[in-house]
Amino acid sequence: MRGPTIADVARRAGVSKGLVSFALNNRPGVADGTRRRILEAADELGWQPSMRARSLSTNRAFALGLIIAREPSVMSADAFFPMFIAGVESELGPAGQALVLSIVPGEDAELAAYRSLARDRRVDGVFITDLRADDPRIALATELGLPAVTLGRPDSTSPHPAVTLDDDPGIRAAVDHLVELGHRRIAHVGGPDRMLHGTRRRESFAAALQSAGLESTLSVSTDFSAAEGAAATRHLLALDEPPTAIVYANDHMAVAGLAVAQSAGVVVPRDLSITGFDGTEVGEHVYPALTTVATDVVEWGRASARVLLQLVTGEHPDDLELPPARLVVRSSTAPAPHPAT
Amino acid sequence: MRGPTIADVARRAGVSKGLVSFALNNRPGVADGTRRRILEAADELGWQPSMRARSLSTNRAFALGLIIAREPSVMSADAFFPMFIAGVESELGPAGQALVLSIVPGEDAELAAYRSLARDRRVDGVFITDLRADDPRIALATELGLPAVTLGRPDSTSPHPAVTLDDDPGIRAAVDHLVELGHRRIAHVGGPDRMLHGTRRRESFAAALQSAGLESTLSVSTDFSAAEGAAATRHLLALDEPPTAIVYANDHMAVAGLAVAQSAGVVVPRDLSITGFDGTEVGEHVYPALTTVATDVVEWGRASARVLLQLVTGEHPDDLELPPARLVVRSSTAPAPHPAT
Repeated sequence: MRGPTIADVARRAGVSKGLVSFALNNRPGVADGTRRRILEAADELGWQPSMRARSLSTNRAFALGLIIAREPSVMSADAFFPMFIAGVESELGPAGQALVLSIVPGEDAELAAYRSLARDRRVDGVFITDLRADDPRIALATELGLPAVTLGRPDSTSPHPAVTLDDDPGIRAAVDHLVELGHRRIAHVGGPDRMLHGTRRRESFAAALQSAGLESTLSVSTDFSAAEGAAATRHLLALDEPPTAIVYANDHMAVAGLAVAQSAGVVVPRDLSITGFDGTEVGEHVYPALTTVATDVVEWGRASARVLLQLVTGEHPDDLELPPARLVVRSSTAPAPHPAT
Repeated sequence: MRGPTIADVARRAGVSKGLVSFALNNRPGVADGTRRRILEAADELGWQPSMRARSLSTNRAFALGLIIAREPSVMSADAFFPMFIAGVESELGPAGQALVLSIVPGEDAELAAYRSLARDRRVDGVFITDLRADDPRIALATELGLPAVTLGRPDSTSPHPAVTLDDDPGIRAAVDHLVELGHRRIAHVGGPDRMLHGTRRRESFAAALQSAGLESTLSVSTDFSAAEGAAATRHLLALDEPPTAIVYANDHMAVAGLAVAQSAGVVVPRDLSITGFDGTEVGEHVYPALTTVATDVVEWGRASARVLLQLVTGEHPDDLELPPARLVVRSSTAPAPHPAT
């Protein structure tokens, strides 16, 4: 059932196990002829180094860790992680590395999960995603001796390399696009305030409005779920002066907002323009197709894995900046119904 | 950085490491007073058993494996796995077990991934999902000595316990609901023919039509993606006699089909009724809200994890049957436009 062992190779080559180990680990002190005989025997038997043996001798787990704090219900609607993980795996598989994944229900369980990964030495490094304000995981990874990369740059000093993808140009392009279409009352339905990418998308939105000489008074925070995106949309459309355009912080909320508008008889994009974020497949397949801000999340996963693999093998990778988010104009945006002057 | 070791406990208790090991492993031959002193020292230092040490002594990895064969692009639209994994994790975390996840691009890479998990002894058992006709993984897990649970029952003899959730009652209920609404030309947009759950949903559909005295001539196979769901819908709506109702094998395809209909001026549900499958969040938040067949995927993950944990600890769990899929009627189904007689 198991593959051939060093003992099998030793038997076939007619030498001791110790000598086989020396030869296979490329250590000096083995005569050339003997080394050749051992390597041939190993080759004929299809011997492969055991990950456990390597793991013991190198004290490495040959695995990387990803811990996600999400309730199962929110997880199911998350478009980011399946794509990010697919990107990570496309690097880890060929490198003979495994991904250890934990999904925990909240932030306390999350910190405990990092401690337990480190204590059990299950992984050689971790991906830190969903950065929060003053994130305790930055110091925790250092305290635990866990090499880490962060997705995005933390708001505090961090010794860990960051792989960044700037949302700002995409959000600004979405707002500029709406302003050019004559929209003046533009609302934002954003993510949680305590997540940095939620905060930053909101700040980009406000800055873009300000550049256009507009005030940003219409901004609602949510948990990124479709349900809260729908509720925020109902709230905005019920205002005395409802917005003529809504910039959502993800596609799922934009799709839910589209349904709320349609069920209220508000025609998108004639009466209301909407934009999403993420560039998900579902946003492409609703009617009207969603204008959105797209990021290459699979590539983000690939790049993060490459940087973390460099780090755990003792290299000192720099921060890596990926191409920024970009606007994809489809059919959910159109000229404002009552252009301001 | 690391937690306290047995050597630290020995130093504090003033005894040998061997004695500490005996005491902490509850073996006989340690005087009661000494044992108490050792346990107190371990407690004061916050000593915890090392997973690696346990792993070496028990030859267990304390981890379970999940290998998914999907292209990254298809993965991003998959509603099943994030929920399934969330359910699995809710059992593994408290049990001190990790999940090792592999996403591989195709079926050859998938078999290699099982071999490598087994060779590296990274996991004590595996979840086998997406069962296919005459699935080679059934025999492979046995050959590799890997305990396994299958999601659903394979079409061949299997020594592995199965955790099943019957789609059939849900699909039949969807067809019956449409027949009661007067629909006679009902189409199916199904999954890949080589996946058992794709085939079974198609068979359930055909059987339900037959029970209603109708022929099932309108059936299209897809790869489960929104793009192919949209293409199938365009094909069906362009027929000389288009269907008045479409039963989709997942929600993402139904949402895409809804958009295709809307963009062609076909009003759902007035001109066309549609049903989905999965009961995803997005299906609840489109307009009109999707009538769908819902399954409890998070519970499927939980139950599968419990069965696999029993199996790897030497128990002999039986097959487990979960509550079947059920119809959830929302707003995308209505009386047929031209009731047949």
